[in-house]
Amino acid sequence: MKPVLDKHHIAEAFRGLQDEICTGLSKADGGTPFQEDNWQRAGGGGGRTRLINGQKIEKGGVNFSEVYGKLPPQAAQSLKVDSSSSEFFATGVSIVLHPRHPRRPIIHMNVRYFELDNGVCWFGGGIDMTPHYVDLKQAASFHQKLKDCCDQHHSDWYKRFKKEADDYFFIPHRNETRGIGGIFYDRLSPGYDGKSLAELFDFSLAVGRTFLPCYVPELDKPITHTPTEAELKWQRLRRGRYVEFNLVWDRGTKFGLTTNGRTESILMSLPPQANWVYDYKTEEGSEEAETLAMLKKGISWI
Amino acid sequence: MKPVLDKHHIAEAFRGLQDEICTGLSKADGGTPFQEDNWQRAGGGGGRTRLINGQKIEKGGVNFSEVYGKLPPQAAQSLKVDSSSSEFFATGVSIVLHPRHPRRPIIHMNVRYFELDNGVCWFGGGIDMTPHYVDLKQAASFHQKLKDCCDQHHSDWYKRFKKEADDYFFIPHRNETRGIGGIFYDRLSPGYDGKSLAELFDFSLAVGRTFLPCYVPELDKPITHTPTEAELKWQRLRRGRYVEFNLVWDRGTKFGLTTNGRTESILMSLPPQANWVYDYKTEEGSEEAETLAMLKKGISWI
Repeated sequence: MKPVLDKHHIAEAFRGLQDEICTGLSKADGGTPFQEDNWQRAGGGGGRTRLINGQKIEKGGVNFSEVYGKLPPQAAQSLKVDSSSSEFFATGVSIVLHPRHPRRPIIHMNVRYFELDNGVCWFGGGIDMTPHYVDLKQAASFHQKLKDCCDQHHSDWYKRFKKEADDYFFIPHRNETRGIGGIFYDRLSPGYDGKSLAELFDFSLAVGRTFLPCYVPELDKPITHTPTEAELKWQRLRRGRYVEFNLVWDRGTKFGLTTNGRTESILMSLPPQANWVYDYKTEEGSEEAETLAMLKKGISWI
Repeated sequence: MKPVLDKHHIAEAFRGLQDEICTGLSKADGGTPFQEDNWQRAGGGGGRTRLINGQKIEKGGVNFSEVYGKLPPQAAQSLKVDSSSSEFFATGVSIVLHPRHPRRPIIHMNVRYFELDNGVCWFGGGIDMTPHYVDLKQAASFHQKLKDCCDQHHSDWYKRFKKEADDYFFIPHRNETRGIGGIFYDRLSPGYDGKSLAELFDFSLAVGRTFLPCYVPELDKPITHTPTEAELKWQRLRRGRYVEFNLVWDRGTKFGLTTNGRTESILMSLPPQANWVYDYKTEEGSEEAETLAMLKKGISWI
């Protein structure tokens, strides 16, 4: 008999997802182990933050959390939910990896589930890629994998969630997308497109399981040349943009930092190093200029 | 006959203040000239952004702006003013300097004037210092200069504006002040403590003129040893905190980035380089730990 799906099963599956992903990444990084930091939340619950400082991944975090308790009024306001619904439960897996080599892309994945004791609940998540240098073949392959994953669940979802990612992973003050986008979805509650809680959960888990097939091939690519100074400089500037997006525009980061979340787990997304140069201009016709020209919304990468 | 004080005189004086400060800083930096970037604002006005990449100052900006036109609805909302008051005028000087040597402090100064065509107007501003390593003698001398400046205008102001700075230059998600504070004031309108527009203007100009006496001695200090790796590492981590404050909490930065301000002039405040290390802990009894212990509100530095 299939067990009834509830928040504990969802959290358990996300915990398993974290294990699966860490195992896969360790292997792809030549066996580098993750360091684990177990933490408790004063109001209820806690998490397992796992860090890697490896051969190919310079700074990476794979975080699992399962938190619950009284919903702080600030959080209720920010989530636009009834604050009289006093008990919440939230669980998720969140990943950001900053590779050493500028020719490998930064990647982000997140799947999360949120529930209130009044029955309101939803899934959210997504995967997006931020190459320092846009590579059309890589972009097509990445988006194809996301499309294949979405298509298994609903024929409209790739198109819809790809657009959501273009809109979400956007830096208005730079008029640039963060990278080549991916998929992003939020507040998928039972009934969304006729889907049950179990079906939405299956989709979120499938998104989580698409992470390794998206990124392990990037780590496996035989990129062996020592990065040039120009490549490293560009990487540090692009990392600066990553910082700008996360600290100024990312709703999850803002939510965490303003509702007394665990700062170190939230900011594990920041790069090891970032640089800023006043009014930096790329050289006309350069690879860097070509990348910038492709950091736009609405590109069909496939 | 003394000319009537109006917005044009204020802007003119701020332009002169920028000149004066740039001349003083160039000299203290061994003659390094500033690079000037003149820019226009589509809706009206513009500015002179001046940059220095010098011998002692690694990345510094001294910005003057004078902008006017129709007040964007977003800006009216953010400033909590009547949006039907359609024309605004704003002028100011804003400075952030990141020194090369970790034993010299980061400094920030800003003076600004804002006016609506319905007669509402105010001054705001402040100076605060962010040493990578807190030095009690330096902190006492810096705060004494600010107190002397304030005391010339009102006996309560140093105490009041010093507390405002403690509260403003604070990073809640780190539970740390940005540095040793200074003074901060906002929305000083005619009638504030019985002061006239001209008196508030005199005060703001005096604050601006306190900048060079506060910082030139820091540049003049004979700090000649090559920074150690430990000093440089700490400097980059502290610069990371500077980025966090400016991008997450600074109201001026947020206001600028969300109201279509000139991004490059706003973000000239960011350091040339910043690093992040997961859950970095200082060694017990180290100078770094001593500095951290002093990044608290309410310290009487004098």
